[in-house]
Amino acid sequence: MILTRRKSRGLLVSLAVLVGLAATLHGQENTLNLMPQPAQVTLSQGRLPIDVNFRIGLAGYEEPRLQSAAERLITRLAAKTGIPLSDRLATDASQATLEIECDHAGEAVQSLKEDESYTLEVGVRQAHLKAPTPVGVLRGMETFLELVDLDATGFGAPAVEIRDRPRFAWRGLMLDVSRHWMPVEVVKRTLDGMAAVKLNVFHWHLSDDQGFRVESKRFPKLDQMGSDGHYYTQEQVKEVIAYARDRGIRVVPEFDMPGHTTSWFVGYPELASGPGPYQIERRFGVFDPVMDPTRDEVYRFIDAFIEEMAVLFPDEYFHVGGDEVNGRQWKSNARIQAYMQEHGLRSTADLQTSFSERVVEMVERHGKKPIGWDEVLHPGLPQNVVVQSWRGPRSLAAAAHQGYMTILSAGYYLDLMEPAVRHYRVDPLEGAAAGLTAEEKARILGGEACMWVEYADPTNLDSRIWPRLAAIAERLWSPEEVKDVDLMYRRLAVVNRELGFWGLTQQSNRFVMLERLMEMNSPHSLEVLDSILEPVKGYSREMTGHYTSFTPLNRLVDATPPESNAAREFTALAANWKTNEAELRKRLTAWRESAADLAPMMKQNALLQEDAPLAKNVAALATAGLQALDYLETGQHAPAAWVTEQLGMLDGAAKPHAELLIMIVPSIRRLVEAAR
Amino acid sequence: MILTRRKSRGLLVSLAVLVGLAATLHGQENTLNLMPQPAQVTLSQGRLPIDVNFRIGLAGYEEPRLQSAAERLITRLAAKTGIPLSDRLATDASQATLEIECDHAGEAVQSLKEDESYTLEVGVRQAHLKAPTPVGVLRGMETFLELVDLDATGFGAPAVEIRDRPRFAWRGLMLDVSRHWMPVEVVKRTLDGMAAVKLNVFHWHLSDDQGFRVESKRFPKLDQMGSDGHYYTQEQVKEVIAYARDRGIRVVPEFDMPGHTTSWFVGYPELASGPGPYQIERRFGVFDPVMDPTRDEVYRFIDAFIEEMAVLFPDEYFHVGGDEVNGRQWKSNARIQAYMQEHGLRSTADLQTSFSERVVEMVERHGKKPIGWDEVLHPGLPQNVVVQSWRGPRSLAAAAHQGYMTILSAGYYLDLMEPAVRHYRVDPLEGAAAGLTAEEKARILGGEACMWVEYADPTNLDSRIWPRLAAIAERLWSPEEVKDVDLMYRRLAVVNRELGFWGLTQQSNRFVMLERLMEMNSPHSLEVLDSILEPVKGYSREMTGHYTSFTPLNRLVDATPPESNAAREFTALAANWKTNEAELRKRLTAWRESAADLAPMMKQNALLQEDAPLAKNVAALATAGLQALDYLETGQHAPAAWVTEQLGMLDGAAKPHAELLIMIVPSIRRLVEAAR
Repeated sequence: MILTRRKSRGLLVSLAVLVGLAATLHGQENTLNLMPQPAQVTLSQGRLPIDVNFRIGLAGYEEPRLQSAAERLITRLAAKTGIPLSDRLATDASQATLEIECDHAGEAVQSLKEDESYTLEVGVRQAHLKAPTPVGVLRGMETFLELVDLDATGFGAPAVEIRDRPRFAWRGLMLDVSRHWMPVEVVKRTLDGMAAVKLNVFHWHLSDDQGFRVESKRFPKLDQMGSDGHYYTQEQVKEVIAYARDRGIRVVPEFDMPGHTTSWFVGYPELASGPGPYQIERRFGVFDPVMDPTRDEVYRFIDAFIEEMAVLFPDEYFHVGGDEVNGRQWKSNARIQAYMQEHGLRSTADLQTSFSERVVEMVERHGKKPIGWDEVLHPGLPQNVVVQSWRGPRSLAAAAHQGYMTILSAGYYLDLMEPAVRHYRVDPLEGAAAGLTAEEKARILGGEACMWVEYADPTNLDSRIWPRLAAIAERLWSPEEVKDVDLMYRRLAVVNRELGFWGLTQQSNRFVMLERLMEMNSPHSLEVLDSILEPVKGYSREMTGHYTSFTPLNRLVDATPPESNAAREFTALAANWKTNEAELRKRLTAWRESAADLAPMMKQNALLQEDAPLAKNVAALATAGLQALDYLETGQHAPAAWVTEQLGMLDGAAKPHAELLIMIVPSIRRLVEAAR
Repeated sequence: MILTRRKSRGLLVSLAVLVGLAATLHGQENTLNLMPQPAQVTLSQGRLPIDVNFRIGLAGYEEPRLQSAAERLITRLAAKTGIPLSDRLATDASQATLEIECDHAGEAVQSLKEDESYTLEVGVRQAHLKAPTPVGVLRGMETFLELVDLDATGFGAPAVEIRDRPRFAWRGLMLDVSRHWMPVEVVKRTLDGMAAVKLNVFHWHLSDDQGFRVESKRFPKLDQMGSDGHYYTQEQVKEVIAYARDRGIRVVPEFDMPGHTTSWFVGYPELASGPGPYQIERRFGVFDPVMDPTRDEVYRFIDAFIEEMAVLFPDEYFHVGGDEVNGRQWKSNARIQAYMQEHGLRSTADLQTSFSERVVEMVERHGKKPIGWDEVLHPGLPQNVVVQSWRGPRSLAAAAHQGYMTILSAGYYLDLMEPAVRHYRVDPLEGAAAGLTAEEKARILGGEACMWVEYADPTNLDSRIWPRLAAIAERLWSPEEVKDVDLMYRRLAVVNRELGFWGLTQQSNRFVMLERLMEMNSPHSLEVLDSILEPVKGYSREMTGHYTSFTPLNRLVDATPPESNAAREFTALAANWKTNEAELRKRLTAWRESAADLAPMMKQNALLQEDAPLAKNVAALATAGLQALDYLETGQHAPAAWVTEQLGMLDGAAKPHAELLIMIVPSIRRLVEAAR
């Protein structure tokens, strides 16, 4: 039924082959905004209109998951376009606007081997999505939704042929739900976002010192005493797993052992190496409480617990943590010291490995494959453990070299507030892994972004994850050659906007948080000022030592996005000041004005008082920038005294205040130096 | 335990009595932003801090509704302040930050007689909320939440004593869910908003030509054939009623008869006066299909239907519609004409009254009090019918004079896009009702805002209701003397912001809609331009005749709020141009720039193309305003030719384009005329 298109396609494909993949990608850079970038895109002529007559048709293999995915696609298309669509499933698939053909069922429990490939052909009269499995269909649906845009003729999708498949089989997000409680709806919208960027593993960090978050029927004091009442019931866990499966996402649970277990010990102090009693930990960091690896009853507990959880979580992998054991309770316990000597364990790392061995054996006995954080990579670690590399890329290469399957998380820590480009440039097969053999490289399953939530709660979580996670998702899905940073940022902005249509809150909640900070005043000035700020990086906030799970996350630093687009744009404009002078002046003036507007009201506001130095510094930076442009424009050299004064001001403005950084400092410095 | 405060309170109350209510209200105008304004407010010294130690204590009468209300208050306080609060119910109420004392149970089914009064005393160490019934507690909780603000010391509530009760017993919102389907979550957030402004009646317009929205087990073809699958199950209805009751809101169902019934006839054409068959109506307006009031089987159907619904909806009132019967099917049906002659019915209005009599009798037999729209007020109408006045205030006065209970809706139609002040000035006891006797006035139960949804869907509904509904809520709750319009607008802005914290979407969805319109561009310029626009008023959109339930509501007019705050502020500034010249120039420049930014991209965008004349006109208006200020500033008289040209431009700019009005036209005209 789409013969005309099929005829022309032959030519286009040959052309694509002729000019090569890079050229194909390059050729469409001004038209398509897909993220992750598909493996192969061949742009054609014309456009498929999307209007109130839109219909989806399902052909081939059918299952309820496909039906509900089609209904969701319709709902989301309606949300994106504002066109009222419902009951748009066509009875005759060949007459549908989007015909979907699935070949066969996927795996009963999605695994690393699931085929996620699809082809999507959009013609001017019909689009055709074809995939071997339902998961492939899901991936193609996301691409189709992303293709829809608005031009002078209305909503539509460009005629195109896409052949797509992921580069890595393991593309995940780890979410900590212990340090701040994340209710089911937050998890669900996170899964919606993950599906939109084709991620396929939700690694659920369900226990830590600050809270045990799953109902255990076998050991009820875990959730009853270790969670402040904030835990997922087993019904809710099943609901989340089903929700994830509907979106082609696996759910890998993590129960971190033997450290990070304070919350377990509140109800079961007998598991610990120290005497107790224990309280739920409210501070953040690495703490002493650790399981006692010398007593059989501890292993009996763990075995029964894993048995219960292995049934609840169908995924073939099971994460047992293993990170950040400081060994203090082991060293200070005479009985444990005696045990170590007796068994020839020379260090606490040896002791941990002996613990890991037994836990790993249990995990396998209950039908699962174990995963551990990279601390577990210690002589004696059983060969079947998957190593999740977080402390640096070297452990990834070492693990693969030593024969372990491995996943990269080092470089993908979203909570460190790094810009997207930093994560985007981290490739699991480059750097330390570049020297591995092909066989060793094949052991690198993929990567996982990590979101630890010391400084995130349900209100600001999305802004800490999105849109930067989309850049990591592209690194893990798209061909290795896709690495142009400017194009990545352009597509990242598009994805960010789309995610808002799907219910993610990184933009809407930022507005709510700024409104809260501004009390009765319009948040506009604060939005302008804040647009060039970023939270401090790395573990700077942790260093202060004064945060707990009870600390309100209602300050400006908690609302500020991790990455300032306005500052990045300004940097690009300032690099070519002659061409962009008017635009530079406009922005500098707006920042100076917003700072002036805010300064008086900040004093009257307990939450904004700490930000007064930022307003003062932004005003000074903007003024310096404008003066520098005056000098540059007239060709006069700026007086040495002025330059000295400005450089001093710049040094002050470069320092963090209220845990925020002003991101235009380097650009202003360059303008001042140019005017010298 | 709050003796210090109690001592000083004596003096303050005496003072309030001395200076009178108006002075009391006046005295706090710079400090409290409560809407609706409470009946009596006495401001004291100091402030109750709200921090992570906040606790609620429940004393006196207890029931689950109070418990869940307290939990909701805590959740909302956390949302408003960003302070993590949970499990904040104190075991010892007297030690709580907010001690709540309820005297006794309310009514099993809330009625007009429910006592909604409360007193709220906020001291520097504790707040004390006291009410006779749980509904009074709910009202006081809303006031407490509204009192919390942020100052230089942090979050807190000012020390104050409030004694409050409503002026009218019936304070409602009618929501049409037929012309556009409104899912349960939309209804729930509407109830949240209603509770926030102390409204107490949700009038649910559940059937109309465009859809029958409730599951009927007795007559399943009503929902199965008349709803496109968009209806509330009986379980969902119960869920909404319980949700409303938890918030002190009654749910009054409306099943509009004998007209507005096309959707009934799709499944049951035998009810109609014309031959059929019938389809769900997609257009908007008044249509011919009407029930046949001459056949007994029609009444048997209605009787059985009311019997079913009377059990489902516990409220003592039951609305049977009765509006907009055009009588055409009756006139063109020979059998019906013969019936009329036989029974001495001289007009179709007489025939409708004979229908109403029988339906009213059934409603009463099933234990309910009937309500009808004001068309039912016709000689012969049974005395026990409540008349809802919508076509004008005269029917309200006439109904009360003739001995009917009555509710005012004329003047409260939110869908007509009138400014808040227009609704605020409509007082049920003024105008036509002013001349009534006290006994007649007592028959005026209150008022109901109406929201018909021809041009509203779940995305923009909130912006069509809020914040203007809060002004109507204040009119119906607060003392008659509360009528200062400037203060009303100030408080309206505060309420609007608060509603965002409670999950209402009038601000967040506006942003999403602007983003959709701007495709890949930042919505900022459009936001600035749109800030001085308003949708056309009254029935202007209906007049075009080209809207249906399938028309996308994704144009700028659908995103634009009904009332422009920016234009109102500009009008106030322009009235005193000498003082405000700099500010006027700043705003005019911003509008001119936004129009210039938008003009080129509008051409490339199918949805914004129609708005190009608005951008052109805004640019011209802003330029004219700036030039007028130039003349005024220099004291030069503007040349006559310039004035003539501007007046011509103003006439053009005053006309609607794309169903939008530019609201600064009158102010620019005054500036141009002043410069003449």
